[in-house]
Amino acid sequence: MMIVIMKRGASVSEIGCVIREIETGGFKARPSHGARQTVIGVLGAKQTAPLEHISELPGVEKITPISTSFKLVNREFQPEATVIRVNGTSVGGEEIVVMAGPCSVESREIQIATARAVRDAGARVMRGGAFKPRTSPYSFQGLGQEGLEILREAKRETGLAIVTEVMSPELVPLVCEYADILQVGARNMQNYTLLEAVGRARKPVLLKRGMMSTVEELLLSAEYVFSNGNHQVILCERGIRTFERATRNTLDISAVPVIKQSSHLPVIVDPSHATGIRDYIPAVAKAAVAAGADGLIIEVHPAPEKALCDGEQSLFLEGFTKLMDELRPIAAAVGRRIAPARHPGGAPSG
Amino acid sequence: MMIVIMKRGASVSEIGCVIREIETGGFKARPSHGARQTVIGVLGAKQTAPLEHISELPGVEKITPISTSFKLVNREFQPEATVIRVNGTSVGGEEIVVMAGPCSVESREIQIATARAVRDAGARVMRGGAFKPRTSPYSFQGLGQEGLEILREAKRETGLAIVTEVMSPELVPLVCEYADILQVGARNMQNYTLLEAVGRARKPVLLKRGMMSTVEELLLSAEYVFSNGNHQVILCERGIRTFERATRNTLDISAVPVIKQSSHLPVIVDPSHATGIRDYIPAVAKAAVAAGADGLIIEVHPAPEKALCDGEQSLFLEGFTKLMDELRPIAAAVGRRIAPARHPGGAPSG
Amino acid sequence: MMIVIMKRGASVSEIGCVIREIETGGFKARPSHGARQTVIGVLGAKQTAPLEHISELPGVEKITPISTSFKLVNREFQPEATVIRVNGTSVGGEEIVVMAGPCSVESREIQIATARAVRDAGARVMRGGAFKPRTSPYSFQGLGQEGLEILREAKRETGLAIVTEVMSPELVPLVCEYADILQVGARNMQNYTLLEAVGRARKPVLLKRGMMSTVEELLLSAEYVFSNGNHQVILCERGIRTFERATRNTLDISAVPVIKQSSHLPVIVDPSHATGIRDYIPAVAKAAVAAGADGLIIEVHPAPEKALCDGEQSLFLEGFTKLMDELRPIAAAVGRRIAPARHPGGAPSG
Amino acid sequence: MMIVIMKRGASVSEIGCVIREIETGGFKARPSHGARQTVIGVLGAKQTAPLEHISELPGVEKITPISTSFKLVNREFQPEATVIRVNGTSVGGEEIVVMAGPCSVESREIQIATARAVRDAGARVMRGGAFKPRTSPYSFQGLGQEGLEILREAKRETGLAIVTEVMSPELVPLVCEYADILQVGARNMQNYTLLEAVGRARKPVLLKRGMMSTVEELLLSAEYVFSNGNHQVILCERGIRTFERATRNTLDISAVPVIKQSSHLPVIVDPSHATGIRDYIPAVAKAAVAAGADGLIIEVHPAPEKALCDGEQSLFLEGFTKLMDELRPIAAAVGRRIAPARHPGGAPSG
Repeated sequence: MMIVIMKRGASVSEIGCVIREIETGGFKARPSHGARQTVIGVLGAKQTAPLEHISELPGVEKITPISTSFKLVNREFQPEATVIRVNGTSVGGEEIVVMAGPCSVESREIQIATARAVRDAGARVMRGGAFKPRTSPYSFQGLGQEGLEILREAKRETGLAIVTEVMSPELVPLVCEYADILQVGARNMQNYTLLEAVGRARKPVLLKRGMMSTVEELLLSAEYVFSNGNHQVILCERGIRTFERATRNTLDISAVPVIKQSSHLPVIVDPSHATGIRDYIPAVAKAAVAAGADGLIIEVHPAPEKALCDGEQSLFLEGFTKLMDELRPIAAAVGRRIAPARHPGGAPSG
Repeated sequence: MMIVIMKRGASVSEIGCVIREIETGGFKARPSHGARQTVIGVLGAKQTAPLEHISELPGVEKITPISTSFKLVNREFQPEATVIRVNGTSVGGEEIVVMAGPCSVESREIQIATARAVRDAGARVMRGGAFKPRTSPYSFQGLGQEGLEILREAKRETGLAIVTEVMSPELVPLVCEYADILQVGARNMQNYTLLEAVGRARKPVLLKRGMMSTVEELLLSAEYVFSNGNHQVILCERGIRTFERATRNTLDISAVPVIKQSSHLPVIVDPSHATGIRDYIPAVAKAAVAAGADGLIIEVHPAPEKALCDGEQSLFLEGFTKLMDELRPIAAAVGRRIAPARHPGGAPSG
Repeated sequence: MMIVIMKRGASVSEIGCVIREIETGGFKARPSHGARQTVIGVLGAKQTAPLEHISELPGVEKITPISTSFKLVNREFQPEATVIRVNGTSVGGEEIVVMAGPCSVESREIQIATARAVRDAGARVMRGGAFKPRTSPYSFQGLGQEGLEILREAKRETGLAIVTEVMSPELVPLVCEYADILQVGARNMQNYTLLEAVGRARKPVLLKRGMMSTVEELLLSAEYVFSNGNHQVILCERGIRTFERATRNTLDISAVPVIKQSSHLPVIVDPSHATGIRDYIPAVAKAAVAAGADGLIIEVHPAPEKALCDGEQSLFLEGFTKLMDELRPIAAAVGRRIAPARHPGGAPSG
Repeated sequence: MMIVIMKRGASVSEIGCVIREIETGGFKARPSHGARQTVIGVLGAKQTAPLEHISELPGVEKITPISTSFKLVNREFQPEATVIRVNGTSVGGEEIVVMAGPCSVESREIQIATARAVRDAGARVMRGGAFKPRTSPYSFQGLGQEGLEILREAKRETGLAIVTEVMSPELVPLVCEYADILQVGARNMQNYTLLEAVGRARKPVLLKRGMMSTVEELLLSAEYVFSNGNHQVILCERGIRTFERATRNTLDISAVPVIKQSSHLPVIVDPSHATGIRDYIPAVAKAAVAAGADGLIIEVHPAPEKALCDGEQSLFLEGFTKLMDELRPIAAAVGRRIAPARHPGGAPSG
């Protein structure tokens, strides 16, 4: 693949002209309008030769062959970090954004109680699955649209943004009506039809690493979203499958610096799925913050022993609050910050 | 989950009565009309207690709690092997069915030439991807419907059945028009929306094991297809992801006896994806036949070095013919048979 | 296995009596004289029945069947953390102990220059292999005893303790003459003859996790050392082998809390072998400290590009100093401390 | 590394001259006297330059830089397959050699009864561990020298050769007195001191692949044995560690063709350790024979449910006999043969 990098300030007609020229050559053009400049991927091109004249066109800065398999999400292509605005918060900036809530949306009461508690502890985003991918067809599959309604109500009550999973292309419009962030689950990381669908959406995407996928494959899946026009992708390391059985998965903590070096996208860590065991969540969450993660997504439930799914990897409300307090000095030690806790009914504390 | 096993010959009204009773109890009923008898899965039921009276209803043989995670595909549930009819051939019976062809449908000429050669060598089914899931959005994604048309033409020319991949639920009706077997690829093994969609189709499904999925998870994915009403599922072991780098994946040959013992479904082996290297395909194909596989799916191309994808793991036409000749005595040694070769333009040879 | 726990203050003759009684019963006794009390493992015993009368003997506190596979290293058996004294420093206490130096001892000059630099940056222990286990018989195998002499000289110059690998039982006495800590490498984690030999030594042992060993197996290997009488074992997580290829191994960061919960032994982390790539060492080292590790072992070399082995995973001297400065606030954030840096020729800085 | 290949028929003095010349240059010479010709490895040499004049010496055919990591065991270096004579049988030739017996030597009665039964079924070599490497220090560690004595007696009774494990260098002389084949276990595959010790022995070595080791690393460990002078190495694939839990390990069946292509050494398969479950052994054993393995090593016990170790992966005597009968036609189908069964007290049957 070649990439045509347009000059800053290239006009719409200059861009249009380049696209026509690419298509005239029998290639497919995929323009991406970045903050810095417009970049046009040339699909199908293996050599620069038949495209060389394009570098002479007005508004073109240069043509570059990109040798790595992922292109638009490559840090070489965009040196500055991508920062994604979500409901008044920024993911990928100085703040480490914490997302928390139950595995699945279970009821109005549980969702709102959890949302209040995690907001007060400093979380910015509330999680909760309305559509649940389950290994067995006989497991609880989520409340569906009713779950989305509950999430909306909990957002109204608490101000927290919503991240929730979308499992299939036809559900993308519905989930977009409710969610602030569309989650693509680990099992769907290489569901290309779904990646294309969320790539056409106008909402940030939380893309979880498949339990069997390399970091390079994760970046290529992000590339699918990007190349369909959606540049708001948050990556999530949630543990990979290995031979070790003391934990549900094995958190690949090195994935954080590997992603940070090779891509401009923000990356968060899911210590609940990574470990599968409540007692290990705090240590792993701290490790993630120290390693440079841009956020965390943690399962929290008022009564984990009664949770409809994943109770054993959910923190109690108090455990979450305690963890957040322990995370703040670590964030400070690496030059970041986590939103302050606020006393119930009162103002945020320092 | 509980399963209500109806007596052989239970009437439609008896079955309907049981379903109503289940739903009255607040559970969800999933009837499966098998060759032997109808079985009704009771979704959401964890204890027999509130259902005990159902065992008294007319037409009910018994209520069974199934402790393994997979139910309908369990060999305990159906002791006799499932045999699936495809285009005049049977998968899961005495014959070892070989499926062969290029990774992707590339052109009318290549597809027909390959189909003729593999048919003459003893293959029963022709493979060829029209829709290709690719790790990179910039790789060749297949010819789409044009590819399906070419497959149909090649079938008309050779009589071979067609197996081709379906990547998303909305494509199921289209692919069903052309394919004899719907392939669900390894990356989609846990794409539950897709599993449900092929579960509602009336075509056999070839379900490939995810490259980092356990056999149990594979059987649970088959259970998704079953519980949506489609009982024609062929499983495929195609190598799992390990640390070893001498081969593309590591063929889990033990999966063959493991599946045979725990499920009544047929299982085939894909030595091309398992090894990723042409030279290793014959040894692995032989191993699969000796281990008890019900079939093979092998990539074959007239000019692998020019193939649009996976050329390095495709056999040459001659290599395929030679392998088929070598497989027949091994099949015989384990009490099975492979279709005879036929001389081009002539009758089959013994 | 059963364990006879003697009362605190049980006399030598009481202990001897119990041992005789065990042996009379046809079992093998393995006494371990801990700080708290003496414990006698009963090898070969599966049931308490034939041993019940032992609980009546003078000095016996109780007889306990231990159901986990590892016994003496189990935190249930010894709730307080093991703290190991090494050359005036404590491993497993409040201080996070950093061990640093070249992969192999290469020359007097390099070893001393590195030792000075890492000591000034706050390291307490110097690493350097004199005997090197190498995958290929044709790779550099280390300087042998000459390497040990260089380590001794570097210790004399800098005051740093020495950790160095011992590869075979017959070398244990020689290495004990020079080393403060005997390292058992990852490839030898299940070399039981070697474990028994270091178990009979009177020096602390640094036991590295095998690259495909579970945490439970690591603890069982530590149990070998313990049951031979040496209770000074430091565990080391150094990355496990997975499918991911972006790093040399995959650091299992969760192993830190898993070990801390299940065992009383100190655990350190090796970010050099875990990642194999210099750029990723700092993030992973920070993660280890935040996760609760008791120490780090890091490869450092004055000119990594010229190192005889593992140069690509060795920090430059300046990189190490910078990392140490970054680690201190993280250590403080988790209630620990790292030795202060000292200005060359001057006093330690805060 | 460089290799000096001597002409066929080079004289001892010519060889000595080359060695002196190599050592004069500051390198280390490792002569290997093969069936075809003598080859002298030059340890430490990275470039041909300082050695070029050696190619002019009398008796020298050529100097070759070998780029693969393994040299002497490489098939490029020796195109013809290595055939190893053991007690009147050949491993690596036309015959597929089956080794069978209990996991550990337990008693004179059990060993002899098993040996008789497996001999009558067509086995050529009897297995049985006298020294057992065990994950836990509290497990049965074998009968030691008493076990070796029992093996000797069973050999006298049955004529079967003995393969038994040697766990440490100091035991090599003792085990050599009894064993026909020295087994190096999976956990010791990278115990280099042990590899060097068996490399200096004059007995064939059965080198088992480590459960965490690549094929390349296995070949490099074989290279250790070779480069110490012992060229009688039989490789053994016994399953690698993966995420799959339906079997104890995952048999890497592709390792058979991979090894056959890259090395001239014979390779056998251990279906007992690979699967860990009796029911799966026959399918996997058949697969191994079909894939081209030169032999099998199978655990067999007269009463597996009472075996001191690994009973669940041991065949009953009758199961072994039945399997051998099923293997013969598969061996014939791939152009090999397995020794015929003989009727107890009678002559071998065809």
